[in-house]
Amino acid sequence: MAEVTDEYDVVVLGAGAVGENVADRASRTGLSVAVVEPALVGGECSYWACMPSKALLRPGDVLAAARAVPGAAAAVTGRIDPAAVLVRRDEVAAHWDDTGQVAWLEGAGLTLLRGRARFTAPRALVVEGVDGTVRTVTARRAVVVATGSVPVVPGTFADVRPWTSREATSTHRVPPRLAVVGGGVVATELATAFADLGSEVTVLVRGGRLLAAAEPFAGEAVARALTDRGVRVLLGTSVTSAVRDGDEVRLVVERRSTAGRHGDETERLTVDEVLVATGRRPATDDLGLETLGLRPGDALEVDDRLQVTGVDGGWLFAAGDVTGRTATTHQGKYDARVVGDVIAARFDPRPAAEGQPGRGGRGLSRQAEAQAAPWSRYRATADVAAVPQVVFTRPQVAWVGRTHDQAQRDGLEVEVLAYELGGLGGASVTAEGYEGRVQLVVDVARDVVLGATFVGPDVADMLHAATVAVVGEVPLSRLWHAVPSYPTLSEVWLRLLEAAGR
Amino acid sequence: MAEVTDEYDVVVLGAGAVGENVADRASRTGLSVAVVEPALVGGECSYWACMPSKALLRPGDVLAAARAVPGAAAAVTGRIDPAAVLVRRDEVAAHWDDTGQVAWLEGAGLTLLRGRARFTAPRALVVEGVDGTVRTVTARRAVVVATGSVPVVPGTFADVRPWTSREATSTHRVPPRLAVVGGGVVATELATAFADLGSEVTVLVRGGRLLAAAEPFAGEAVARALTDRGVRVLLGTSVTSAVRDGDEVRLVVERRSTAGRHGDETERLTVDEVLVATGRRPATDDLGLETLGLRPGDALEVDDRLQVTGVDGGWLFAAGDVTGRTATTHQGKYDARVVGDVIAARFDPRPAAEGQPGRGGRGLSRQAEAQAAPWSRYRATADVAAVPQVVFTRPQVAWVGRTHDQAQRDGLEVEVLAYELGGLGGASVTAEGYEGRVQLVVDVARDVVLGATFVGPDVADMLHAATVAVVGEVPLSRLWHAVPSYPTLSEVWLRLLEAAGR
Repeated sequence: MAEVTDEYDVVVLGAGAVGENVADRASRTGLSVAVVEPALVGGECSYWACMPSKALLRPGDVLAAARAVPGAAAAVTGRIDPAAVLVRRDEVAAHWDDTGQVAWLEGAGLTLLRGRARFTAPRALVVEGVDGTVRTVTARRAVVVATGSVPVVPGTFADVRPWTSREATSTHRVPPRLAVVGGGVVATELATAFADLGSEVTVLVRGGRLLAAAEPFAGEAVARALTDRGVRVLLGTSVTSAVRDGDEVRLVVERRSTAGRHGDETERLTVDEVLVATGRRPATDDLGLETLGLRPGDALEVDDRLQVTGVDGGWLFAAGDVTGRTATTHQGKYDARVVGDVIAARFDPRPAAEGQPGRGGRGLSRQAEAQAAPWSRYRATADVAAVPQVVFTRPQVAWVGRTHDQAQRDGLEVEVLAYELGGLGGASVTAEGYEGRVQLVVDVARDVVLGATFVGPDVADMLHAATVAVVGEVPLSRLWHAVPSYPTLSEVWLRLLEAAGR
Repeated sequence: MAEVTDEYDVVVLGAGAVGENVADRASRTGLSVAVVEPALVGGECSYWACMPSKALLRPGDVLAAARAVPGAAAAVTGRIDPAAVLVRRDEVAAHWDDTGQVAWLEGAGLTLLRGRARFTAPRALVVEGVDGTVRTVTARRAVVVATGSVPVVPGTFADVRPWTSREATSTHRVPPRLAVVGGGVVATELATAFADLGSEVTVLVRGGRLLAAAEPFAGEAVARALTDRGVRVLLGTSVTSAVRDGDEVRLVVERRSTAGRHGDETERLTVDEVLVATGRRPATDDLGLETLGLRPGDALEVDDRLQVTGVDGGWLFAAGDVTGRTATTHQGKYDARVVGDVIAARFDPRPAAEGQPGRGGRGLSRQAEAQAAPWSRYRATADVAAVPQVVFTRPQVAWVGRTHDQAQRDGLEVEVLAYELGGLGGASVTAEGYEGRVQLVVDVARDVVLGATFVGPDVADMLHAATVAVVGEVPLSRLWHAVPSYPTLSEVWLRLLEAAGR
């Protein structure tokens, strides 16, 4: 077994979207950067999450849209072709081949170490290569942990080889009967997708609603739509037993009585696959965090510079799911840009007078990073109150910033503005019987939007207007001048402002 | 013939979307308002423009979207059903029945005078009712002209009974062969719609491109797409003769030689209908403007309060197409809100101390209106540099604010950022071979977005994010924190910021 010792300015653990972005930006002032990844470069999102799930969901979206338009509906005579959907999904997931991503990474001047890294001391790691090599790797300046997260699989399911999001998004077989355990983004999206593909789907939710992180009306709309398409959505349940029997899985489901006084109801459910989508936890088990005084398995707590708060010396950073601070690819990439810029500036190796136009030389960028205010390029301010989330269910659900509940918990005086999208001219030409709803949470004192929630077909790309309003802190009095075009669905902004009496 | 004399605080000429909004808002401080309208309440947009044209276009959009998604495409075996499309269009146009609009207007406490108004003196009008009555109507405070615009039909077509947008959007017959004269919004939308419905369409454009008001790449994309669908798009043409012969119209089309040296080419074209969409002019012919010292037929020039600049006394306002300042329903409604608020405040009839919470009493609102700054509710500031336009062609085209050319003509130092939408992860799951492009024009000195153009399938509702950014004057450094969700098409914002090196 060969042993090699390497030194880099920066070592990034994890070559998902987050790690790639950290590495790219950290290297911009000339720092040498290595990225350590035992699996596919490109990460969960490209191969087992966002991308393949969207490929599974899109066919149902476009057929539903066509069926809702008189004059087009009659042209849709067939159904979704699951085999063709899976072929397309394979393409979208690049056939789980990371050649293209590796080429990008190397083209960007970054070093890829294919292996698993463990800390042995501050800024020192051992990397066990997938090729059997063992390297001692030292980071002269900084280490960034971007190893992401792994699904949580409750013990009940330990022996039934359940699906997680990975198996579900990469399956080549559509199970005739699928149980989905969970009610969050993964659960609702994949319940929708497999119902489209022809599975008989049962969603088993512990809590009282779907999409518990969103405004209540969002999860209610998704539950209603799933039910209308023949999906059983069982709220207030827990799976007390799961047994695999050949190709089948037998579940015992306890359900709190809806009558509220007869105790629990027990239901036996036999399915072909169980998708466990009950949450994820930071992938920090095997990183040797104990050598740094941190506890393996815990999230790496960070400040707004993405610097790990539990370790001294200003050399350890974390970004993405591993921080427990964000849970989406896009927000992880945002954090990645911030931490990449912080590192590029703080450890800028160029002579003090040198620099890029508009960015300052080493002295200037170091100073700028050290003194940065919120909303600067060196602070992940949006993580606090402007995180967007899009759920590609049907209807779609999209929100940004604070929900009504969150704003109240933060002690803010808020006004809630809501409008049913179906009342818009634009909705009536989009689909017969278009249903949707948009809600804004407004900070009364500052006259700005704190949060926005969109529910309806094809609302995903309506969200960004709200995100710009929240992040830009654009007062409602100014938003009044942002005229939505008629007859788009964006006209809802006008209705919401009218509802505010402005 | 009965003669009646009426007095109102405010008289609004025209009960389209603009007139309705003016009247509604002007009446809010208690002013009495009459609206004069000879035709349908609700206006051009509801019955003969935005709404029916969208009803004609939507079926083609949804079928194209479904055909572009593997796994869904095979389910689309049929074609558009023109009869069903026209039935739906009839519903969307409320069967050209304004009962609902009239009920709204009367419910809002406004007086509807069904007739034609002409000025006889400042603030004095004669209204010839559709029922034969003649009323003398006096406006104690203000008159607002919101009579809209009418199509321009060049003399060449005087004897062939051409279609204008009215006949095209309300037709119950799909012509086998249709010539569309013009290259703007109406021409490109209706060429798309009738090609969908099965017409053999020829578009005859005087200039060198479609959608001349937009960035050049927009019209090029639409021309390419129309051509791909079998529409003939002939640029650099003029129709020198048009003769109706029974059910047919024979056109002689002169076309500037593309070789550039052989002079014009002449083509004879026989069609079943000719749609003339060469522009519109203000509907000011028969308003008696000459009694006010203005020229009938001219646009009514207004300032940012929508006050007509050519008439003294602060009593004459105009809003919408009639001003020549805006040409869309949404921007006309924006102007309507401003002028309505100006009138409500300036002529507030309530006792000086009285008022609504947060709006101040008469004294306060009068003062606020008089001293209003740009971007206040009393100034139509967005008309100057933040007007949005959406064209529902396929691909759709949407823009707001300044084009690159306009910004340069305004003497601004700009940076142009562009990105091909097809390169996004979100595009690859939206449609196979998704093509589109987004371009931002950025003010280098102020680091803000001056204009944005979106071209691609379903980009209509992506525009509003840009409109909020332009109107909110949100710096690019802040937009960096407005994270687009992955994998939406809005991710283009991230790519554009990366292109800017930010």
